[in-house]
Amino acid sequence: MEKSDDDAFCFVLFGATGDLAFKKLIPALYQAIRFNSSLMGGKILCVARTDISEEEYLKQAKDYIIQSVAIDFEEQSWEKFSQMITYFPIDVTDVNSFWVIQEHIKNKTAIYYLSLTPTLFEITIKNLAANTLINQESRIVIEKPLGTDLASFQKLSSLISQYFLENQIFRIDHYLGKESVQNLMALRFGNRLFEPLWNRTHIKSVQITIAEKDGIGLRGQFYNETGAMRDMVQNHLLQLLCFVAMEPPYQLHPDAIRDEKLKVLKSLRYYSLTEVAENSVFGQYEAGIIDNHKVDSFLEEKDIPSQSSTETFFVGKMLIDNWRWAGVPFYVRTGKRLKEKKAEIVIYFRNIPHHLFNMPLNKRANKLVISLQPKDSMDLYLMAKPPGYSQDLKPVKLSLDFECQLSSRRPTAYERLLTDVIHNNISLFVRQDELEEAWRKIEPFLNYVSKNPKQVIPYMAGSWGPAETNQLILKDQDSWNDERY
Amino acid sequence: MEKSDDDAFCFVLFGATGDLAFKKLIPALYQAIRFNSSLMGGKILCVARTDISEEEYLKQAKDYIIQSVAIDFEEQSWEKFSQMITYFPIDVTDVNSFWVIQEHIKNKTAIYYLSLTPTLFEITIKNLAANTLINQESRIVIEKPLGTDLASFQKLSSLISQYFLENQIFRIDHYLGKESVQNLMALRFGNRLFEPLWNRTHIKSVQITIAEKDGIGLRGQFYNETGAMRDMVQNHLLQLLCFVAMEPPYQLHPDAIRDEKLKVLKSLRYYSLTEVAENSVFGQYEAGIIDNHKVDSFLEEKDIPSQSSTETFFVGKMLIDNWRWAGVPFYVRTGKRLKEKKAEIVIYFRNIPHHLFNMPLNKRANKLVISLQPKDSMDLYLMAKPPGYSQDLKPVKLSLDFECQLSSRRPTAYERLLTDVIHNNISLFVRQDELEEAWRKIEPFLNYVSKNPKQVIPYMAGSWGPAETNQLILKDQDSWNDERY
Repeated sequence: MEKSDDDAFCFVLFGATGDLAFKKLIPALYQAIRFNSSLMGGKILCVARTDISEEEYLKQAKDYIIQSVAIDFEEQSWEKFSQMITYFPIDVTDVNSFWVIQEHIKNKTAIYYLSLTPTLFEITIKNLAANTLINQESRIVIEKPLGTDLASFQKLSSLISQYFLENQIFRIDHYLGKESVQNLMALRFGNRLFEPLWNRTHIKSVQITIAEKDGIGLRGQFYNETGAMRDMVQNHLLQLLCFVAMEPPYQLHPDAIRDEKLKVLKSLRYYSLTEVAENSVFGQYEAGIIDNHKVDSFLEEKDIPSQSSTETFFVGKMLIDNWRWAGVPFYVRTGKRLKEKKAEIVIYFRNIPHHLFNMPLNKRANKLVISLQPKDSMDLYLMAKPPGYSQDLKPVKLSLDFECQLSSRRPTAYERLLTDVIHNNISLFVRQDELEEAWRKIEPFLNYVSKNPKQVIPYMAGSWGPAETNQLILKDQDSWNDERY
Repeated sequence: MEKSDDDAFCFVLFGATGDLAFKKLIPALYQAIRFNSSLMGGKILCVARTDISEEEYLKQAKDYIIQSVAIDFEEQSWEKFSQMITYFPIDVTDVNSFWVIQEHIKNKTAIYYLSLTPTLFEITIKNLAANTLINQESRIVIEKPLGTDLASFQKLSSLISQYFLENQIFRIDHYLGKESVQNLMALRFGNRLFEPLWNRTHIKSVQITIAEKDGIGLRGQFYNETGAMRDMVQNHLLQLLCFVAMEPPYQLHPDAIRDEKLKVLKSLRYYSLTEVAENSVFGQYEAGIIDNHKVDSFLEEKDIPSQSSTETFFVGKMLIDNWRWAGVPFYVRTGKRLKEKKAEIVIYFRNIPHHLFNMPLNKRANKLVISLQPKDSMDLYLMAKPPGYSQDLKPVKLSLDFECQLSSRRPTAYERLLTDVIHNNISLFVRQDELEEAWRKIEPFLNYVSKNPKQVIPYMAGSWGPAETNQLILKDQDSWNDERY
């Protein structure tokens, strides 16, 4: 891990009055700095269009931090943190309003976090450049959506790469900041027990799910143009798939890891439109009931055109054409207004070849469940003999509860990732070629759904998606990890 | 599992006033019958030389049961249980005193438990036969010591086999009644996760330990003639080794399992005397301190001749010459007056081939610890990443605590085994050919120690045996699983 001089950074937060900034980034910075006293010499320059005073900004920031960190809030830390912050109104489209940045980043490593709508990326970067605010030390942090298809992503990349080298660009995928994703690496490559089983011989299938109970809220316009594929699959789901499927890197150097992830994405089968039809299900939620509350259909949401065929649900059976995974289905699934909020990776091991013991038919196979939401955890499901005379085996759950044994604080995903940005540790960020390959591989899905809007199947809010979802997985004699064990 | 008509058994307990009978067998029978109401129609005929009344016998039995089962005691169950018991004084050397048995076993399956000194086995069996008390339904239960060497075991076997078929002979090894031994089978053959790792490719070594803090108590004469090899290695330790090392049986039929165990014993390397010297350590305890109490040396114990060279400690590096285990050391270890009381099987996995993460040097390898004493449990030791920024892995322990998830009562080893005898389930009992092969394989050790009494090395009571023990294991870059993790 390369480390810069911690004292010498200025974190410039564009869009500092936005939702993401107040709800996630500011509280994450507060915690990052509170628990890394070496960072206290840095500066945080918050900028946004909103013309409010610094005092007012800090007041709001404090409220959001208290809401977010709850009992972790500490007045003394806040005092120190708030002294690091400057707020200044900036119109990013006005090249003349950037002078304030110049003053703050002097003799410091500038870290530009663009918490902006993507249409503002280009002008913001150009205006930073026009004010000579970018040098070889500068870092830029951006987050999805990065492009809307392969071509637009390539265009954005080529713009950014005019001003920043690849190792200055921090593309955030906040799922990669989750402890369980990192523990998956430790489990696989720090232990003898799992890697020999981690292949087509022993693993039957993999399920990667990001399910939400929420609808689209007030983001109707954005979501209608985006849909589940672009919002969740191209980035989060494929990234998680990479961590499950990648070969052991030769070292933990960021590019060694990202080279292996890229290989997985390159091995992902590129589907024809017919293959997309056979291996995926697109859905859109109808009205329904969630937690005993009636919720509206997608088409009734604010800013959604009445004929919209945007998918709010997707499941795809992905295949990785390489030696390790040939023939093993990787089901990726995401959706809004589903029955539960959960993000998880489920590794289903193959059944044992020969049965000596009686076991419940549908629960025979071992599985490893890596939960990212609502909690960060890992559970291993085994068959065991209950004490006594019976030879009938029953399923038991082994919780890999590392926390209670390895007592140390668990940072949130954003806190972790922002600290990594400040420490110039790019391991958990996504490289340009990875995202490009991901866009390439989901293009057939995007094309298919835009050509076949009728294939977006309605499903009831509060369900697990269209019934076709079960048929897809049943073809492989699999079932979803949704019932309680 | 074959099942006899439960109502129709008569359990004839020879040596019914002995230590084993009162402390283990009677309480085990009480529990077995209490929790298997179908057994309540049976009879228990307690016989011994002691000329006491049935009333007096029951009084003593009740006291021992209360001591043994503690809060599990239930007056009502005792009432029923005591009504099943008859006590009658018998001199087993007197053929005319067996008439009382005849009367009790009429129309019943006779189960003869010989809780007697082995010198009385022959006369007892002959007198049973002379009274025509043995038929094809009868069962005989015997326990170690079964012979003192290969020849004497063969003699005993040939005597018993004149009157009983192999499937009528229940040779008890109470370690096989432990839940964790049976769960080892379930773990290996009921799950996908372990069997692929269960071989020389992934397992570095196996340690099987039965360590006692106790000395020899009042059994000086017996122990001086027996020693640790005959007392613990030939039976318990080699049996446990079989369960770890055996191939998957084709079914759970008793002989299918015992065939596999026999194959392991046959694959055990037969050592020359030189190889015994290289691969084992014999010890005898000197005075020392255990739990803050001074304890005597073996030579100071009652009935021990002052020049005795009987070993009270043994460790041997055993090798299994087959495809699965070639080159993997199986260390078997037992001793009296050691630092701790514990019985455990430790599976050490090989180190990972390539280290990405920092890990504590001496705790890198995964291990599976199957504890039989003081508690029945299984723990898997893995490396995991503590929450937060560090990439240094630390060891964590996963407890396979089946009990709390599979809530069912855990019978004691004797209760389990006696119930199996009554149910005619011979799976957990040891077949003649297994014990014969075990005697064959330990003969070189017995010969070596009798020819080289000076090789029995003194060790301090309260230690982990002679220092040579560590040198033996260090040759393989191993260490004992004795420090706390």
